[in-house]
Amino acid sequence: MDEQKRKRVVILGGGFAGVYTAIHLEKALRRRDDLEIVLVNKENYFVFQPMLAEVVSGSIGILDTVSPIRRMLPRTDLHVREIESIDIGTQTVITTPGFIPQPNVIHYDHLVLALGNVTDFRGLRGLPEHAIPFKNLSDALYIRNHVIHALEEAAIEHMNVELRKQLLTFVVAGGGFSGVEVVAELNDFVRQVIRNYPQLNPNDLRVVLLHAQDRILPELDKELALYAQNILTRRGVEILLKTRLEAATGDEAVIAGGIRIPSKTLISTVPSSPNPLIDGLDLPKEKGRLKVDSSLLVQGTTNVWALGDCALVPTVDGGTCPPTAQFAIRQGKTAAHNILASIQGGEHKAFQFKELGKLGALGHRSAVAQVFGVNVSGFIAWFLWRSIYLMKLPGWGRRMKVAASWTFDLFLPPELVQLKLTNSMGVAHEHFEPGQEIFHQGDLGDRIYIIAKGHAEVVHHDNGSDILLARLGPGEYFGEMALLNQTTRNATIRCQEPLDVLSIHKREFSVLAANLPAMRESFEQVMKKRRQGTAVQVPHGLSTDYTDGKE
Amino acid sequence: MDEQKRKRVVILGGGFAGVYTAIHLEKALRRRDDLEIVLVNKENYFVFQPMLAEVVSGSIGILDTVSPIRRMLPRTDLHVREIESIDIGTQTVITTPGFIPQPNVIHYDHLVLALGNVTDFRGLRGLPEHAIPFKNLSDALYIRNHVIHALEEAAIEHMNVELRKQLLTFVVAGGGFSGVEVVAELNDFVRQVIRNYPQLNPNDLRVVLLHAQDRILPELDKELALYAQNILTRRGVEILLKTRLEAATGDEAVIAGGIRIPSKTLISTVPSSPNPLIDGLDLPKEKGRLKVDSSLLVQGTTNVWALGDCALVPTVDGGTCPPTAQFAIRQGKTAAHNILASIQGGEHKAFQFKELGKLGALGHRSAVAQVFGVNVSGFIAWFLWRSIYLMKLPGWGRRMKVAASWTFDLFLPPELVQLKLTNSMGVAHEHFEPGQEIFHQGDLGDRIYIIAKGHAEVVHHDNGSDILLARLGPGEYFGEMALLNQTTRNATIRCQEPLDVLSIHKREFSVLAANLPAMRESFEQVMKKRRQGTAVQVPHGLSTDYTDGKE
Repeated sequence: MDEQKRKRVVILGGGFAGVYTAIHLEKALRRRDDLEIVLVNKENYFVFQPMLAEVVSGSIGILDTVSPIRRMLPRTDLHVREIESIDIGTQTVITTPGFIPQPNVIHYDHLVLALGNVTDFRGLRGLPEHAIPFKNLSDALYIRNHVIHALEEAAIEHMNVELRKQLLTFVVAGGGFSGVEVVAELNDFVRQVIRNYPQLNPNDLRVVLLHAQDRILPELDKELALYAQNILTRRGVEILLKTRLEAATGDEAVIAGGIRIPSKTLISTVPSSPNPLIDGLDLPKEKGRLKVDSSLLVQGTTNVWALGDCALVPTVDGGTCPPTAQFAIRQGKTAAHNILASIQGGEHKAFQFKELGKLGALGHRSAVAQVFGVNVSGFIAWFLWRSIYLMKLPGWGRRMKVAASWTFDLFLPPELVQLKLTNSMGVAHEHFEPGQEIFHQGDLGDRIYIIAKGHAEVVHHDNGSDILLARLGPGEYFGEMALLNQTTRNATIRCQEPLDVLSIHKREFSVLAANLPAMRESFEQVMKKRRQGTAVQVPHGLSTDYTDGKE
Repeated sequence: MDEQKRKRVVILGGGFAGVYTAIHLEKALRRRDDLEIVLVNKENYFVFQPMLAEVVSGSIGILDTVSPIRRMLPRTDLHVREIESIDIGTQTVITTPGFIPQPNVIHYDHLVLALGNVTDFRGLRGLPEHAIPFKNLSDALYIRNHVIHALEEAAIEHMNVELRKQLLTFVVAGGGFSGVEVVAELNDFVRQVIRNYPQLNPNDLRVVLLHAQDRILPELDKELALYAQNILTRRGVEILLKTRLEAATGDEAVIAGGIRIPSKTLISTVPSSPNPLIDGLDLPKEKGRLKVDSSLLVQGTTNVWALGDCALVPTVDGGTCPPTAQFAIRQGKTAAHNILASIQGGEHKAFQFKELGKLGALGHRSAVAQVFGVNVSGFIAWFLWRSIYLMKLPGWGRRMKVAASWTFDLFLPPELVQLKLTNSMGVAHEHFEPGQEIFHQGDLGDRIYIIAKGHAEVVHHDNGSDILLARLGPGEYFGEMALLNQTTRNATIRCQEPLDVLSIHKREFSVLAANLPAMRESFEQVMKKRRQGTAVQVPHGLSTDYTDGKE
């Protein structure tokens, strides 16, 4: 067949919806060659979401819950790239450049939008800077490593009891399926491995679940939700209902009403919203999700399809499909059928599916399930959960590996290796809430801070009394003497109103200053001024290098 | 027992030497409580080095080759921190701060230096920027993910044949045990998984081993080395002997004599040198390694012990111990005995050990071994290798997991998941060699560059002829228009002499410029000047925004 006449179907997104569309399209490729399939996904693997929480506790191996897309889709042209833009007018998708900075334009005849949704912290004070989402494999690994890091630090924190308790407090916001599964696994994990930290008291562990409504698991019947609450509580999870997370800092979760929970680990599974790429499309939407007809065609188009969590798919009874894997998988089949019908001529099928059931794992041999209208809980539900999901996992290899991991998990202690894979945070956005200290007089100085929003107070402690030295605002910076000498901070910086800063480690700052003459000069000038006491008025006799030690 | 009278042994380093010293000291803790053991290591796990190369090919799981130190050493106080400084005079070790920036000082009665060695690229042109070491678990994972990334990019590179070949070329420098093992596993891996990339031609794969001497594996008899060379060559590894790596860029390995191998993946296991912390100590050294007596006491001290790769341990026959695990493990036992003797009184034992043998894996069911003076190669050596190392792996749990992984590896294809865990390189040091292009007219502009060392030429291509627009030197920058508008580069930047630059992605640069007024202003000024044509003389009619597209 002439290449020119081939129709190209471009699928955006490698979740359940996108991958299952491609699986069903590939079946047609056995009989015909007038079709080519391109799938764009930022990772080269598909994540089997239901088991992701088990990566946190290590009851399955790191790679057990993901499958290489190439092996699932041997006839699909996989592009492991991020999507830069979608142009419906010219029928093109542009992906980010690879090793060579050249634009990569993919033309499509049919476009399948299966971009899912994202956890969107924008507009929430401190959450973009300090809350950890739980969506991808990298999130699960990050959480796991961060929790082990907190335990390691707590183990050598002999002096500061408050800090140790803060390190041993883990907060999860959002009591839907995903929040419940992650809090259950996290709780099991820390309570098991604390045995390996003889310096730590298990009673100091605190695992907290925050949920805005009056019961968790709104997806399920009340009976099952109460069962789940009961199990989790018995295992030591503190469930705070009717409680909304309002803000976050690196040191605490701030709850609406002003209560603060000191913690270095805040995971939030809410709020979730469609992929930002969908926002930019001039297509009919409702609550950010694409409006499609029953054949999954986006309204008003003839070759743009949408399915999965980013689409609003009507059900036969007049409602809309919930954003779950069950629906996404079946929508994939319908989309593939209808795309083929569009290309070769034929009738579109309407999407029709009645939910089989719902399953939620509660960690250690317990789960809740609603199957064919029957409620099941406890060990039987857990057995059901494991059996169903093991069979749904793509590929026999993966299934065997998960089965082996589960077997080892029965008699071996959980993994305790902390993988330090992310670079240290050289340049970081940080958020502080009123009353917090950014740093304390006497601390080691290793970062400089530039205020982006809000004000901070510079305070010097002297013989038991505090002297206010200055008030700093946007564009001003502090801690800069850390760059010149390795000494301790000479003053405390306190936050009086919500404060956003950019902090730069002295290592990165030195590199920038060494290479950017303008930056170096400007800093040198300000430091000179501060030394001469012209930048702020300071009481007589105090060092004017008020944020850091003397040279 | 009174805490005050307890003697504290502080062990620095969690490799074979440090961990085995602690294991033998812990045995004494069963009978006495006048001793406490502190071990400082930057990771919370011990790496079983011999199996590390298998992580690259995925024939064992990611965590199979590491063990949590806490589980191996339940009575040791583990500090997961980096070491900042060692003060022999005051008998203290300072570690990096944790969550709170306060100094952490550990006093010792006995100090055990077991810091191993590091791959040291300093002073080698472009290696610190572009060569990947192979030492730790994170290196092995990085290599694995980078190789998969190169394959993914090659698969969608339909137009540029040169780039595709470059992406499919993998270079390893250093033909000792570690280089040979990594090149063997890497070669097996890429030749197996290329089947999942139907777009790629297996004949385009190139796996190269560079070695400075006239045969690989200098640790072994010539006969075995030749056997290994033979096996590797037959499997497709190109072995270049008497070949020294001279420099590296992001695009090629430069060999002494001027030959360049285009490649995006350069791994170097050489040169190796002792941990930089040892450098700073005022203790007797030879070739950077600490000189110890036969009891492992550092010469001239009474409570500082050194062993493993950072020490020069005399053998009974007047030579020195090789830097291998076998020796480190036995040295640990001797050190523990002698430390206990120093504390409770008693005779020091001299270190005495005759090497049992040497083993090197060659990938897919082949190895070379020299055991009790007998040379073994091929399948038998491979079987020996697996049996011996499986039994030497610490802990039954780990052994079972590795055995399971090896079993799966017999019939399942290797893992193909690319874990993107490191942050994208927002700020990077880069090195270029003469003749290279930093970017090309028409490329997308997403980074700005500041010259740290060397000069670059700005060239405009017009109707087939090249016009030299300017020559830039240290402190000058180019590519800055990328910040203002998303357009293509309007000129090519070419390197005429070795060039070091700092490159900043526009995302990071925008953050810095938004928060650092001085930086923004200075850039705005220079850009204004360039627009007015005062920065460089440009031919009439050409845009003066010579490094980027027009606004």
